[in-house]
This record gives sequence, C-alpha cells and structure tokens, in this order.
Amino acid sequence: MGDSKQDDLRFIRPEIRRMTGYTPGEQPAGGPVVKLNTNENPYPPSPRVLEAIAAAAADDVRLYPNPVAEPLCARAAEVYGVGRDQVLAGNGSDEILMMIVRACIGAGERVAYAEPTYSLYDTLVAIGGGEVATVPYPQSFELPVEPLLGLRGKVTIVCNPNAPSGTVTPLEVIEGMAPQVEGMLVVDEAYADFAAASAIQLIERHANVVVVRSFSKSFSLAGLRIGLLFGQPAVVSELLKVKDSYNLSRISIAAGTAALGDLDWMRANVAKVAATRARMTEALTVLGYSVLPSATNFVLARRPGTNQRPVFEALRARQILVRYFDVPELRDALRITVGTDDEIDALLAALRDLTDEARGR
Amino acid sequence: MGDSKQDDLRFIRPEIRRMTGYTPGEQPAGGPVVKLNTNENPYPPSPRVLEAIAAAAADDVRLYPNPVAEPLCARAAEVYGVGRDQVLAGNGSDEILMMIVRACIGAGERVAYAEPTYSLYDTLVAIGGGEVATVPYPQSFELPVEPLLGLRGKVTIVCNPNAPSGTVTPLEVIEGMAPQVEGMLVVDEAYADFAAASAIQLIERHANVVVVRSFSKSFSLAGLRIGLLFGQPAVVSELLKVKDSYNLSRISIAAGTAALGDLDWMRANVAKVAATRARMTEALTVLGYSVLPSATNFVLARRPGTNQRPVFEALRARQILVRYFDVPELRDALRITVGTDDEIDALLAALRDLTDEARGR
Repeated sequence: MGDSKQDDLRFIRPEIRRMTGYTPGEQPAGGPVVKLNTNENPYPPSPRVLEAIAAAAADDVRLYPNPVAEPLCARAAEVYGVGRDQVLAGNGSDEILMMIVRACIGAGERVAYAEPTYSLYDTLVAIGGGEVATVPYPQSFELPVEPLLGLRGKVTIVCNPNAPSGTVTPLEVIEGMAPQVEGMLVVDEAYADFAAASAIQLIERHANVVVVRSFSKSFSLAGLRIGLLFGQPAVVSELLKVKDSYNLSRISIAAGTAALGDLDWMRANVAKVAATRARMTEALTVLGYSVLPSATNFVLARRPGTNQRPVFEALRARQILVRYFDVPELRDALRITVGTDDEIDALLAALRDLTDEARGR
Repeated sequence: MGDSKQDDLRFIRPEIRRMTGYTPGEQPAGGPVVKLNTNENPYPPSPRVLEAIAAAAADDVRLYPNPVAEPLCARAAEVYGVGRDQVLAGNGSDEILMMIVRACIGAGERVAYAEPTYSLYDTLVAIGGGEVATVPYPQSFELPVEPLLGLRGKVTIVCNPNAPSGTVTPLEVIEGMAPQVEGMLVVDEAYADFAAASAIQLIERHANVVVVRSFSKSFSLAGLRIGLLFGQPAVVSELLKVKDSYNLSRISIAAGTAALGDLDWMRANVAKVAATRARMTEALTVLGYSVLPSATNFVLARRPGTNQRPVFEALRARQILVRYFDVPELRDALRITVGTDDEIDALLAALRDLTDEARGR
C-alpha cells in the first residue's frame, strides 16, 4: 500500500474526491430555538399517524418491510386518482430524485434546470457523473421556458413551486413544455400542497412526465423520510429497478399510509400556514423587505443589494434560525420558513429590533 | 413525442432498460406461514427497542432527522471500539453497498467477488454501470483467494460469513488479502454476530478495508432498515458525500441506538439460533442433506445433483417458505433460515413426509 493520503483513496472516483457533499440546513441538537431554516411544518402530523407509528412498534419489526411499500402506494393511487402501477415510494423525495438520476443519466449526460432552485440537484448530478446545465431565473422567478428547453437536458427538472423562491409556474406552461423537452420532465412538487395546482394528471397524457411528492412539508413528516413518484407504468417500472431493495421501513410505510388517510388534518395545517404566511409577508414588506408571492411554507425575503449575512447571524445569536445561501444571486435574501404565529412574532420582533439598531436608535 | 414504447423510454439509460431488477425474497401479506426464506430473526428485538420506537412516535417527527444519524453512530463507535469518524449509518446495509458502488465505480470499472454470494451485488454493480467480475467458490466454499485477487477489482467484496453458504473465511485470510487487493476491500458482515470473529479491527491497519454491518439479522430489525459501515475517516468522509441527504428516519436512528444499548438481548437470541441451527443441521443430515457448517442464521442444505425445486414447491404448498435459487450452481440446494424450534420442527416434519412420499410409502 502507498503511504500518501491520495493513494489511500485511489479506489474513490476522482469526481467524488473533487466533490463537496450536500450541506443540509442546520438541525440543532436541543435548546430553545425558533427553527425557521429547513421548511418543516410547525404543526404536528395527524394523531392517526402517531397512532400508526406506535402500533407498528411491535415484534414484527423483525420482518422485512414490503419491498414496494404496497399499502402506501395503493392508498396513494386512490387518493391521487391514478393507477397502482403509476406510483412508487421513496425514502424521502430525495431518494426518488437520486433514482431518476441513476436510471436516466450516464457519464456526461445533462440534467437541466433553472437556478436558483433546490441545491441538492447539483449534488445528485455530480454523484451520478452527469453534467449540470442551468439557466438563471429572472428576478421575477418566472420560468425561462425557451432557454431551459434550449439546454436539451436528458432530464429537465422544474421545482414547482420553486425553492427557495416560493413561486409557481402555471400548469399550462409545464404542460406546454412536456412535448418539447428532449427527455424526461421531472416536476418536483415537494411544496405542491401549499399551492393551487398539481401536475399529477399530466402523466396520463405525457409519457415523459414524472411528478415527485414529499411528506416532509405539508404532512409534517420530515423525520420519517417518505416521498412518492407518479409516472406512466413503464417509467415507474424502470425506476423501480434502481431503488434500494427495501427502501422504506415498516414504520414509514405505516405512517405514510395513515397520513393519506387524514387529508383534512394536512389541509387544516396548510390553511394555518397560509394565513401566517400572508401576515408575515405583509409585516416583512413593512420592514422594507421585498417578498415574492409564495405558494409554499416559506418566503424569500429580499433587500436588493444588501447582503443579509449580518441579519442571518444576528437572528442566529437570538436563537432564531433562518436560511442564508452564500451564493451571489441570493446573498441579499433570507429564506424564512412559515412557523407558528408565535414563532413568526418572535422573528418579526427580532427583525424590528435589528432595524432599530441599524438606524442607531 | 414518438409513439413507440421504446421511444417513450428514450430517457432511461439503455443499461437500465436491459436490466432485470433485484428480486427480494417473498414477503407474504398474511396468513399462517412458516417463514424461513429471508433470514429474518425468529425472535423479537429488545423491549428497549420497541419502547424507543413508541417514544419516538411524537410530534417531533415533523422535524428532519439528524443527517448523519449522530446518536446511532456515536453509540456504535463506543460499542465497536472505533472513532466516531470511522462510522457511518445507512438505510440498511443495502444502501451502504450502493454508496460504495456510487463512490468507487465508474463506467466499466470492476467489482470482484466469489460466487455464489449475495445476489444483490450483481444488481448494484449493474445500476452503477460497473462490470461484475467473479470467480466460482469451490464446493467447500473455501474462498478462492488467488483467483479473486487476480480479478483486480477496483472494489473486491467478501461476504463473511457468506450467503447463501453460511461459511466463514478466517480473519487472517482477509487480512492477508488487504494489502494485495487492487482497490477497496469490502467485508460484508451482515451475519457476523452469528460468527466468532469480525474484521472491524482491520480498518485501523488497512486504509482500503471497510466493514459493513446490518441490524436486520442479529438485532431482529429487518423492518427498520439500519446498517453501519466502519472504515478509516478519509474513506468514511468520501462515502458520506454520496449518501442520501437524510438517509435514516428519526425512528430508525432511535431504534438502532436502543438496540446497541442492549447487546445482551441480541446475544441471547444469537445463542438460541445457534442451538436450533445445530439440531436442525443434524436432522437435515439424517434426512440425507449435506449441510455446510454455518456461522449464520440459515443453513444451505444440499442434495448433490437433485434439483430441489419440487421440494421447495411442496413446502410452499404446506405454507412453509424456504429459499430456492434458480441458478445452475444452487439448484440442488435449499437455503433455510433458522426459525424458532417449533418452526424448524414443522419444517423437519414436512421434509420427512415428503421423503416418505418420494419413497412411495
């Protein structure tokens, strides 16, 4: 064996050695923190979900789970009005996105999207040995359709609503793109329950469209790692080949199935979030932020031209976590999760203090 | 869009289209079945594990889990006597094996192992676009070290104890291989708690050795998807780059941590399995099977030259599931999980009946 560090890692692909891993938002270990940084739902999941988890804490955890998360997918097919063979479940929608890259992207093949968007896409493409091809969103965050199509991605991703902007691309725009994209069109609907429309029905008319959903936001289940994909049966069947053999635990299957059995609970939480979001958007605007209309459980608050790192850090010193992205196009912005009313009051009070301090009062 | 089926899947990599997915062992939906087909532990996990799951059924499932399964890895470092930075956790050891392929194997690069072994390796290498290079095990299942080294894999896997044979490669043989393999040496120790030795300590002396563990067998937690990898910090750090962002749920982290807090429970189950295994091996031998010495929770029972499919099917008709592999080198064998004493009595009774029937009594 060689003795240099480099040689010790000779078996790791050079692309991986060069990569920096994905940095998830901070998950503080404990203490009193107002956590508005990773778009978790401030309200708990349905009591039926917690009952299902407790009931699954039984001796049969010794047995493997159903390899295709059968009860969850069957329930999802009913709820979303698609065939059972048009659904698959993932260990979070992150795993589903990875499965798409694995199944579609060979060395050097292109994944196209408009930026800024969910930064995990970059990491997944790098892991898959593909090539990232992006076009910038304009300030309005209207999807730059023609430039995006011009990238001719083998996979094109539209995060809709988009993170971190919170903005929506109308369904007819997405449908118009479907026959024009070079390869697969992925609609990442992690936040769609907070918006008015979903692309799920498009899969019937467009064989190259898949829609990805998450239980982490609207269903308050980030801790359990549950995602769904909808697509035509032939596509689902190819994607199933590249998933981990038993990708969802028995508990996550039970919890996801129970969550889909209590949509009213989820919708009530979504309504509460929307009400708080409206109030918070107005207050942030009064404080001098420009806030894009959000169809998600977060807002992007911007002070054009003013780096928000000091604000991010001052909030952090007061135990209020928001998300700051250290990239040129987002340095003048904070992405703030819609918390409970009390949490948002604490945030707004802190921001008012900071503004007063900045004015030297 | 084209209208041919082939064209509809133009965005799926041709290698994936050609692939057949991994077929996990059957997971029957219900009914009275003696399930000896997927090497689950017949005994439940520690009550502390079930308490930990029930306690985790709380409102904070709305929050993301710790992205590196911190409590679990910290506990594992203590239990296995390694540094915290020498451990990572996976969504089952299957995910860890996929991470190894992702991090190490570029298009056409070789993964080497002796066959027959865990059939998922073939699938993972195919997904990763690598090349499978194998040498046959002899009938004795002694590891063919020189031929295996001769394959010059960028990754070499030794499943130890091996599945489906149940046999062990001595630790000194593994250690002898470490400086000679071309790239990474993966010791897949899914069944190691049933055996006498572990390669974990080798990671201190050999930068290219990683050891993979599963909670599915000895810890009775197949339903929760928990695996661990041990390796040098630089290797762990590269592998972490390619894992899913939050790969273990809050519940699996809590359950795995609790399981490592009650090793006595696991060891007592392992001892019960070993006792039943000895009795079952003897009885199968009396019935005319040749049974390799097993250091796992299953046995490979062989009738040289006689296809065991009819026996597999006859057992299945009696609601007894064992594993039959339809590949040339294993058609005269059944892989039988060590169940409870009652389950094994039922199996043996059924086999005796079948033998009597075959003799026309």
